[in-house]
Amino acid sequence: MSEMFTVVPPADALKALFDRLPANVRRETVDTADALDRTLAEEIAAPHPLPAFPRSAMDGYALRAADTFGATETLPAYLNMIGEVRMGQASHLTVGAAQAAVVYTGGMIPAGADAVVMVERTQRFDAVTVEVLRSVAPGENTIGVGEDVAQGEPLFAPGHTLRPQDLGGLLALGITSVKVAAKPRVAILSTGDEVVSPDATPGPGQIRDINTYTIAAMVTRVGGVPLPQGIAGDDYEELLCAARAALESADVLVISAGSSVSTRDLSSRVVNNLGKPGLLIHGVAVKPGKPTILGVCDGKAVIGLPGNPVSAAVVAGLFLTPLLGRMQGVAKPSLRRRIAATLTHNVPSVPGREDYVQVRLLEREGRLFAEPVFGKSNLIYTLVKSDGMLCVPLDCSGLYQGDQVLVELS
Amino acid sequence: MSEMFTVVPPADALKALFDRLPANVRRETVDTADALDRTLAEEIAAPHPLPAFPRSAMDGYALRAADTFGATETLPAYLNMIGEVRMGQASHLTVGAAQAAVVYTGGMIPAGADAVVMVERTQRFDAVTVEVLRSVAPGENTIGVGEDVAQGEPLFAPGHTLRPQDLGGLLALGITSVKVAAKPRVAILSTGDEVVSPDATPGPGQIRDINTYTIAAMVTRVGGVPLPQGIAGDDYEELLCAARAALESADVLVISAGSSVSTRDLSSRVVNNLGKPGLLIHGVAVKPGKPTILGVCDGKAVIGLPGNPVSAAVVAGLFLTPLLGRMQGVAKPSLRRRIAATLTHNVPSVPGREDYVQVRLLEREGRLFAEPVFGKSNLIYTLVKSDGMLCVPLDCSGLYQGDQVLVELS
Repeated sequence: MSEMFTVVPPADALKALFDRLPANVRRETVDTADALDRTLAEEIAAPHPLPAFPRSAMDGYALRAADTFGATETLPAYLNMIGEVRMGQASHLTVGAAQAAVVYTGGMIPAGADAVVMVERTQRFDAVTVEVLRSVAPGENTIGVGEDVAQGEPLFAPGHTLRPQDLGGLLALGITSVKVAAKPRVAILSTGDEVVSPDATPGPGQIRDINTYTIAAMVTRVGGVPLPQGIAGDDYEELLCAARAALESADVLVISAGSSVSTRDLSSRVVNNLGKPGLLIHGVAVKPGKPTILGVCDGKAVIGLPGNPVSAAVVAGLFLTPLLGRMQGVAKPSLRRRIAATLTHNVPSVPGREDYVQVRLLEREGRLFAEPVFGKSNLIYTLVKSDGMLCVPLDCSGLYQGDQVLVELS
Repeated sequence: MSEMFTVVPPADALKALFDRLPANVRRETVDTADALDRTLAEEIAAPHPLPAFPRSAMDGYALRAADTFGATETLPAYLNMIGEVRMGQASHLTVGAAQAAVVYTGGMIPAGADAVVMVERTQRFDAVTVEVLRSVAPGENTIGVGEDVAQGEPLFAPGHTLRPQDLGGLLALGITSVKVAAKPRVAILSTGDEVVSPDATPGPGQIRDINTYTIAAMVTRVGGVPLPQGIAGDDYEELLCAARAALESADVLVISAGSSVSTRDLSSRVVNNLGKPGLLIHGVAVKPGKPTILGVCDGKAVIGLPGNPVSAAVVAGLFLTPLLGRMQGVAKPSLRRRIAATLTHNVPSVPGREDYVQVRLLEREGRLFAEPVFGKSNLIYTLVKSDGMLCVPLDCSGLYQGDQVLVELS
């Protein structure tokens, strides 16, 4: 029962991992309509202007603005109606001086016209004459060619994660497929002689597997594909064999290790023999999560999580989430994950390590408060009862009641 | 070209819609492992305590705390080692007075023992004797039966949307399937003689369908199943027929109508004849999005969106998103969607309507600013260039530079 590892600050540990990994993003082509939440792996510029033809922004009359100058309710301009532009059809009309054509919202503005007057600002005089009751400026109530986007305008950079409106914007331009980052495949291997499948009835001394499912769902949330590998026993050969098979079909291997020193030593030996360079980090200055293992085996990341469910989730958030973001070339992490709140209690910590404290969010009089959930890192319901967590930074001896904190939502 | 509708505040319009809809949540049973982001439709209590047996929180020795009272480095307590509790196995040992058993983190604490001393606080004296170098309190370094959750403890209420850790918590208790709200099926029908499919090359006066895809992705995001229905022309019979077929296979129908008065009238007539009671609301006090249509047809909601892509997205966010939340019985909307920021410019508005203004978020010196993206509601790239939107409330004539605002992320 010996334990020898030097702890490394989380940021340094992540850098050590990234430095040893290839930086390229694996790409694939998908239908734009199916690309929600995927991250672009190409630059996209507008292939043609949008709109591609001048459109009316109103129901009304297309006309020459000059013909309406000075028009008022008492002194209207009289224009000859020359016809109607039907929706979805090219206009074969040409609007000349003192002429007007009926147009509808979104319809094409006929040649010769440079403005639209709203129907509410007009009056029909007779079958062929319309009174315009106010003046319109050139361009008024029209959408010019390229007013939405100009031809060749850069629209999206690689690393942009596609939202609903982005799909609409791409399809508006006929871009029906896009190159996106392939979803990283993440093998998840649970270990421990005491761990059984959730559908089994645990015997005395046995517990059900939690981490496979918590981590799988976290992987799904950040765009990866979880590949659960079942449970391996606390045996070097068995674990090495299972890890090797898992890594073959995946881009990343996560080993949810036991929390005892002996099983942690087992995991680090396996990581060290799985490929080159092997073990990089064994021990991170973070609580919970100190016995974290990071390695790179033949170009693939291997992360050894502590067995305690809270520690495992914290460490996965610290290393697996940013890793999967990097593998997809994500330009900026989602703003959705963080929310500001006021701390309700003092949170003591120790300088030299990052502390992650689970919190519950409470709303009082329109303000948001973060209340620490002080629970042991081996209790999954500490996480269940929390809305997120906050970080007490490395060089900080604690946070104070009333401090403004950023809560990472879980 | 006549337009007759009275506008209703958005909250009243939503209430009118909800009042006419059945309040029940359709349920289905799914595997817990597949239930991420699904909303529970049952109450769940713990079927057994967690942990189900007393566990060690450390690698060390299980013992009777009383035997260590007063122990120090210079005056250690000497205990007889009676064996080891292997991981995943029941212990058949009983720890008596002045006895100790080797235990590992997460392993079972044998009968008779009431505490664990960390291995680092001990020294092996000989093969059968261990020196304990400090005293431990009863319960120290142990996790008692039910310390995580007690048997029968209420864990989840209906309406809770399942997160990664919740799946872990359920599976830890052997709850391998759960009753959740069925995913609402949302038929999306685009209309307009000018609208063509994104894979077509639009002729003069034609535009590609945007709203089907933007709305479909929004539906997916809030847990619904989008069922795109293609494009119907601006013809009453054609539209009624397509709407009827769409509604038959769906729980909700969204019609993305044209933006001209005539096509809006078409949509409202169709909604009124699709089922009872038919049209409820035609016109909402919101900008953009005034010509919104809300109806209930034989127990199913029908939403007519304006054709402009920005208006359609705003209105879908105002009515479709809360509707799908209600249909799934979601207890509280996600905190993920809102973020506080400081407004960079004045935003004028008009009392009597809600204004939704697209904004870009900028980070400067650690503070978040919201910069309005002033763009026409018929330009999809107004939405693409934005990170979210803010609401200028109904009775407000505008917001001021420097105001703290809540941005709804898009």
